[in-house]
Amino acid sequence: MTHVFNFSAGPAVLPKEVLLQAASEMLDWHGSGMSVMEMSHRGPEFSSIHRQALDDLRELLDVPANYKILFQQGGGLGQNAIVPLNLAGRRNDPVVDFVHTGSWSGKSIKEAARYARVNVAASSEAEGFARVPARESWKLSQDAAYLHICTNETIDGVEYPDAPEINSDVPIVADMSSHILSRKIDISKYGVIFAGAQKNIGPAGLTLVIVREDLLDYASPQCPSAFNWKTCAEHDSLYNTPPTYSIYIAGLVFAWLKANGGVAAMEQRNIEKARLLYEAFDRDDFYVNRVAPEFRSRMNVPFYLRDESLNQLFLTGAQARGLLQLKGHKSVGGMRASIYNAMPIEGVQALVDYLNEFAGR
Amino acid sequence: MTHVFNFSAGPAVLPKEVLLQAASEMLDWHGSGMSVMEMSHRGPEFSSIHRQALDDLRELLDVPANYKILFQQGGGLGQNAIVPLNLAGRRNDPVVDFVHTGSWSGKSIKEAARYARVNVAASSEAEGFARVPARESWKLSQDAAYLHICTNETIDGVEYPDAPEINSDVPIVADMSSHILSRKIDISKYGVIFAGAQKNIGPAGLTLVIVREDLLDYASPQCPSAFNWKTCAEHDSLYNTPPTYSIYIAGLVFAWLKANGGVAAMEQRNIEKARLLYEAFDRDDFYVNRVAPEFRSRMNVPFYLRDESLNQLFLTGAQARGLLQLKGHKSVGGMRASIYNAMPIEGVQALVDYLNEFAGR
Repeated sequence: MTHVFNFSAGPAVLPKEVLLQAASEMLDWHGSGMSVMEMSHRGPEFSSIHRQALDDLRELLDVPANYKILFQQGGGLGQNAIVPLNLAGRRNDPVVDFVHTGSWSGKSIKEAARYARVNVAASSEAEGFARVPARESWKLSQDAAYLHICTNETIDGVEYPDAPEINSDVPIVADMSSHILSRKIDISKYGVIFAGAQKNIGPAGLTLVIVREDLLDYASPQCPSAFNWKTCAEHDSLYNTPPTYSIYIAGLVFAWLKANGGVAAMEQRNIEKARLLYEAFDRDDFYVNRVAPEFRSRMNVPFYLRDESLNQLFLTGAQARGLLQLKGHKSVGGMRASIYNAMPIEGVQALVDYLNEFAGR
Repeated sequence: MTHVFNFSAGPAVLPKEVLLQAASEMLDWHGSGMSVMEMSHRGPEFSSIHRQALDDLRELLDVPANYKILFQQGGGLGQNAIVPLNLAGRRNDPVVDFVHTGSWSGKSIKEAARYARVNVAASSEAEGFARVPARESWKLSQDAAYLHICTNETIDGVEYPDAPEINSDVPIVADMSSHILSRKIDISKYGVIFAGAQKNIGPAGLTLVIVREDLLDYASPQCPSAFNWKTCAEHDSLYNTPPTYSIYIAGLVFAWLKANGGVAAMEQRNIEKARLLYEAFDRDDFYVNRVAPEFRSRMNVPFYLRDESLNQLFLTGAQARGLLQLKGHKSVGGMRASIYNAMPIEGVQALVDYLNEFAGR
């Protein structure tokens, strides 16, 4: 096997141990004679896999008892519509508040405008999305149906250091797709948390939704049943056939996280990985990261070569060293290193060594 | 490994060769150093997997050039809403025609009623869904937005022997979830075909949509972007991150089908498998299948023991012989044997032997 470190923003690197176990169980899960892919979603075998994944996730994230954990489909972009279809109905003639911190909150704003009036309470667009707008500057509505934030902008590399205090009972909806399970979070600060799986959870095609029970009652009649949170909760995510194999892989990832110290240990490792990488950019002015230090993402690190004519040379050299998928998102150019939970510190060190070597040439 | 035959209605048995290949490539796809699960959906590796799957499927189903093949999420239940959200807009104050032949068309009717007026043009409910209503009896609307049929009812075991002739240009939408790729179909007779993958295609969580290009322009403003067929078509199913690993497995299934004679060879094998099984029921009156012979499904074979007090004994004996997941759907009771493409004739023969032995006792 080629030895590589994969910096893809998602679908992204998975723990080697998880892939080894999945390969070994592919044809026969625990003596059942079946692959997990072949199991009825209502049979005892898959039920036990599903239950264990839910229990482990609840433990890892310390999810309070009054929150449901749902497995849906359609990813973050799907939830951009599914959220207002389920929650805008909290108010008549609803307004939804947003904080615009980058590409993903921007997409959410655009999609929500199909279903509700949208108020952009704050935006850092004029500053090139280099920060989360200061809390004092947020112009929140009087009585929003909810406030939507993206707590880690995968493309722009901006991360909320903690949950915002908004001094009202307006529920906060957080798109945590690209940093869930990477740091401790206080779930009780949020009404709804959603995350596409393909970064820190498992395969693309699985979407995690954590929703406070009192927010399950507001779905629009236009909300497709398969994406109605309440229907999904009442049927334990089995209203429609769930992406069973993806739930199985997610469960293996959760077990791996638990065996490796849980979220607290991941957070310490992620702090160290991010420190190593940002220090390499700050050492001289060959590379640039434009995000204000207190909002720099620990998961997605966009950077630019000051001399962009060297981009192709940089990428070719990286590829030759097995440092894969470092090209930045097409909408912003440059480079991006995504260093999710499953990226070992050795991978970050290998990238830092290459960064230094390339700058030195 | 336990040797079993898995008669699950879905998720269902997959070809052993596919699982073996998936296991062997789990950690390193074609020397890339990455699992398919870890690949960016926009990178060259996954692009080649995606392209090959589309090409093979187009060849297997002989899909005309003016039809798009989309990979979506949310399954058949998702499409029950996604179809009217994309297509009811063909008409002002739209009416949608349905033929009610069992549980799945029933669910489709209920869901579509959120988005359009529904006309049940024909129903076999009064006959216990034992047949497709005779074409002459269908009371089609003058100018429906579309006609929705379920060409194989997974729970009721009723299959259309061919595409209905409706003598108008109203597009026919066909839910083919549980028999796609099992028999030759003339795609040009349909406007839209959809299918959840978890029967004859691959893992749950992937949804196939084949749509005629002129039907891409009618989405409602309420249609979530991630489920808008046109958006999906314009972005080659990459508008949101697709279920990449499921597409890869589907691609392996398509390659397996091609290597095994394609749809024509599958159809011959499926005719033979179904013949074997139905003959066992018709031999005496110990077992009952209630569907009229010309509409009996080749894929999903529900049956009842005349003496239902023997049900548990029957199932326990089957399980002991490695004949798995034969319990009927909870809504109809009894038994069901799903005998998809990947079920070998040996599995059907093993079931028939058991049926005869159990009846003889």
